[in-house]
Amino acid sequence: MHLGIDIGGTKTDAVVVDAAGVVLARHRLPSGTGASAVIGAALEAGREACARAGVGPAAVTVGIGSPGTVADGVVSHALNLGIDRADVAGDFAAAWGTRPVVDNDVNAAALGAWTVHGDGAGSMAYLNLGTGLAAGIVLDGRLWRGARGGAGEIGHVSVDPAGPVGSDGLPGGLETYASGSGLALQWGVEGAAGPDIVAAAAAGDPRARQICDGAFFGLASSVRVLVLTLDVELVVIGGGMAAWGAPLLDGARSILDAWAATSPFLASLDLGARLRTMDLDVPIAAIGAAMLGGGRG
Amino acid sequence: MHLGIDIGGTKTDAVVVDAAGVVLARHRLPSGTGASAVIGAALEAGREACARAGVGPAAVTVGIGSPGTVADGVVSHALNLGIDRADVAGDFAAAWGTRPVVDNDVNAAALGAWTVHGDGAGSMAYLNLGTGLAAGIVLDGRLWRGARGGAGEIGHVSVDPAGPVGSDGLPGGLETYASGSGLALQWGVEGAAGPDIVAAAAAGDPRARQICDGAFFGLASSVRVLVLTLDVELVVIGGGMAAWGAPLLDGARSILDAWAATSPFLASLDLGARLRTMDLDVPIAAIGAAMLGGGRG
Repeated sequence: MHLGIDIGGTKTDAVVVDAAGVVLARHRLPSGTGASAVIGAALEAGREACARAGVGPAAVTVGIGSPGTVADGVVSHALNLGIDRADVAGDFAAAWGTRPVVDNDVNAAALGAWTVHGDGAGSMAYLNLGTGLAAGIVLDGRLWRGARGGAGEIGHVSVDPAGPVGSDGLPGGLETYASGSGLALQWGVEGAAGPDIVAAAAAGDPRARQICDGAFFGLASSVRVLVLTLDVELVVIGGGMAAWGAPLLDGARSILDAWAATSPFLASLDLGARLRTMDLDVPIAAIGAAMLGGGRG
Repeated sequence: MHLGIDIGGTKTDAVVVDAAGVVLARHRLPSGTGASAVIGAALEAGREACARAGVGPAAVTVGIGSPGTVADGVVSHALNLGIDRADVAGDFAAAWGTRPVVDNDVNAAALGAWTVHGDGAGSMAYLNLGTGLAAGIVLDGRLWRGARGGAGEIGHVSVDPAGPVGSDGLPGGLETYASGSGLALQWGVEGAAGPDIVAAAAAGDPRARQICDGAFFGLASSVRVLVLTLDVELVVIGGGMAAWGAPLLDGARSILDAWAATSPFLASLDLGARLRTMDLDVPIAAIGAAMLGGGRG
């Protein structure tokens, strides 16, 4: 059996799954702040999930998904967790007894989404519309991380030189259109979240309306970039913005449909049909972390 | 040994290579028009290359690269060759005695470029700036064709909603900026080629200057899309526009440098250093076809 632990910005989510990725037990608790608290929470969540599954720590493989940059088990720049640099694999192993596989949360979520929602497709992009925008890529059933671990960083692809300027100083980036940080940057209110802007748009604020339309354009453009470059069978969206649900999908699909109505080539690609949402209650990042620990991906 | 045949719009190029892709013999002749002439030329070029290498037809594997859409050995929509639909694998096999592997010319060129110019890199995009713009993608040393054979069709990625309208009716496509057909479409002269526009730009024509700047922007944007999505170690350019040489590379690199000067993230990716030209006299498409026939890719 495989233990997977998803260290999130606020919650740490642990699952024990079988070889097919079916969840046998789950436990969640607050992540805490700082390396010691965060790793302590991961250990506690893992122990409780194992106890609920009726297995001992030595009987499971362990995989961990974490925000930030991950290399050789070391997590850096996980600002939401108050971690500048932490040897998550080493510190976890010292207490647990076996060394976990540690990867970034988007890769873990991609593998989990493919396990749960892949429907047997050989290839899939998991598009995370969270604080940032990035994709995890599964090709032939395995993660493609890229030559330097940077595959899927499409948030920094520009689709309009006259578009809104992003946190990286460049205009029209997909992340500026369709991520939590990008929406807040455009809206100009520190800490503003998608729902504030959606509410303002619904109340008739023209600037909020424009920002929402930009989010639909950013999502549609992300699907276009991912499918034209990779020809993945599915693009599954997750992250905080995915909770917008049908209005987001409908908005993006209406743009994809307009493109297809003009371009026979784009029409032949069925972009709208490849775009999928998923059940946001399924802990895909923890499931994917478990599959990573089990040698998958 | 492996025989590779590159059926081009004007010339058919056959090589015999060893297991490492080193060319032992080569023969070129005009491709002709229509299925019968084109397949006849491929057979003749193959026989002569084998004769020059001192091997019999039965002693080589055979791979063929062709323009158009290729599926199960059948070539369709190869308009430059006067082929609407032809069973290239079947007709070739009937005369040669063994069945060749047939793939599209961009995939063959990608595998050949990786064989010759890969420098041991695990991943590479071969960006073909020919009549159209498309990339062949090599990941972990093998071609990634996509779920439906459409990977690398980035010519239809838009990078500017206010950009020039392409043959597919949509604005700002990479192919419209940086391909032979796109340049001719913008210039508005049927049959106009890159060199005409470059010459007009050099003579001070402001519209030609703008189109050339757009070609640099299209190439730089193509590199950005490919590296951000795939994180390939190298982007190697080929096709007719690659013959522009240093001015094209310098123009694209100056845009990549300007982006890097603004965005620390893009700077960290070394986009300019990943962009490479190659020796255009090396028959990469024929070499790649030979490697495909030999079971590589």
